[in-house]
Amino acid sequence: MSDIDRLIQSLAKLPGLGPRSARRAALYMLERRESVLAPLIAALSAAAEGVRTCSTCGNLDSTDPCSICADPRRDPTILCVVEDVADVWALERANAFRGRYHVLGGALSALDGVGPEDLNIAGLVGRARAPAVAEVVLATSLTVDGQTTAHYIIDRLEGCEVTVSALAHGIPLGGELDYMDDGTLSAALKARRPLPRGL
Amino acid sequence: MSDIDRLIQSLAKLPGLGPRSARRAALYMLERRESVLAPLIAALSAAAEGVRTCSTCGNLDSTDPCSICADPRRDPTILCVVEDVADVWALERANAFRGRYHVLGGALSALDGVGPEDLNIAGLVGRARAPAVAEVVLATSLTVDGQTTAHYIIDRLEGCEVTVSALAHGIPLGGELDYMDDGTLSAALKARRPLPRGL
Repeated sequence: MSDIDRLIQSLAKLPGLGPRSARRAALYMLERRESVLAPLIAALSAAAEGVRTCSTCGNLDSTDPCSICADPRRDPTILCVVEDVADVWALERANAFRGRYHVLGGALSALDGVGPEDLNIAGLVGRARAPAVAEVVLATSLTVDGQTTAHYIIDRLEGCEVTVSALAHGIPLGGELDYMDDGTLSAALKARRPLPRGL
Repeated sequence: MSDIDRLIQSLAKLPGLGPRSARRAALYMLERRESVLAPLIAALSAAAEGVRTCSTCGNLDSTDPCSICADPRRDPTILCVVEDVADVWALERANAFRGRYHVLGGALSALDGVGPEDLNIAGLVGRARAPAVAEVVLATSLTVDGQTTAHYIIDRLEGCEVTVSALAHGIPLGGELDYMDDGTLSAALKARRPLPRGL
């Protein structure tokens, strides 16, 4: 196999790149060696060497503990439990959470053979036992697996002196009722809240 | 900027990857260092070092002349003129052309400031003058720039002892009339051909 074919094959393994877009990306890079290919190789090598998993929360960062765990301005009393590092990034982009995270590394799944010992749940229970921690926010996905994981964690946190909460379910901002699935609509209806009168 | 941010930024420069899919790809690689990240770095480095431009036809390959130019089974009497290496790959996948290629490296474009001296047209004229070459097939894009380039090449080949031809225009295989643009429909009508009777 030629160098080009091998490159296309490696690129096609990335999510979001099929054979066609992998070919396009390979050609684009080979035609821009100095401006695209060389910087990409440098960035990949630096990431391969420099990025590690935070031994406290499971986040990925250049340092261990990660910059969030090491930041004294982050509230150490709230832990937000997420499935993946991508969820940490999404919440950080929203800039709505000032506590710390705990990355499980996936969700329980009977189908995929993911059991509690495959996830970083023991670490979570250990962290939740620390006297500093007052609340655990469950932010696992609203899928069957994610909610199974949330319920399992609630059981495991039995006996810890923490409040356990979960993200609210409902219509997303900008969401049109017409396009919402039935489950979201009934969840939003069930969780309806009284509005203050006389506004 | 952290290693991860720099990686995401480098990935987002590739065609077909926006910021969101670059984040997804970066995370995917960092979570699969041995199976995805390391092979990708190796493939990119090998391509950066090993892939060169064929000095005869402009194709990209691990060898110069490229494997097509070096293949004695390829018909040396027909040259197919294309804009980019991607076009060579597309024609090779179709497995419909047994001659050799000539890659221009783009199309003439007044808007983008691409003139004849920016394309490998002198090389084409030189090759077309060789006694072995009998036909030049113009396979530039059916865009204004591509067709301008084709006309310019026809002028430049004036005096060369070659037949100049072009790819046929018409309805693509499997194409539905209802979805075709007006230009394609009128080109297909103009180029209509009589069918043998009595089939």
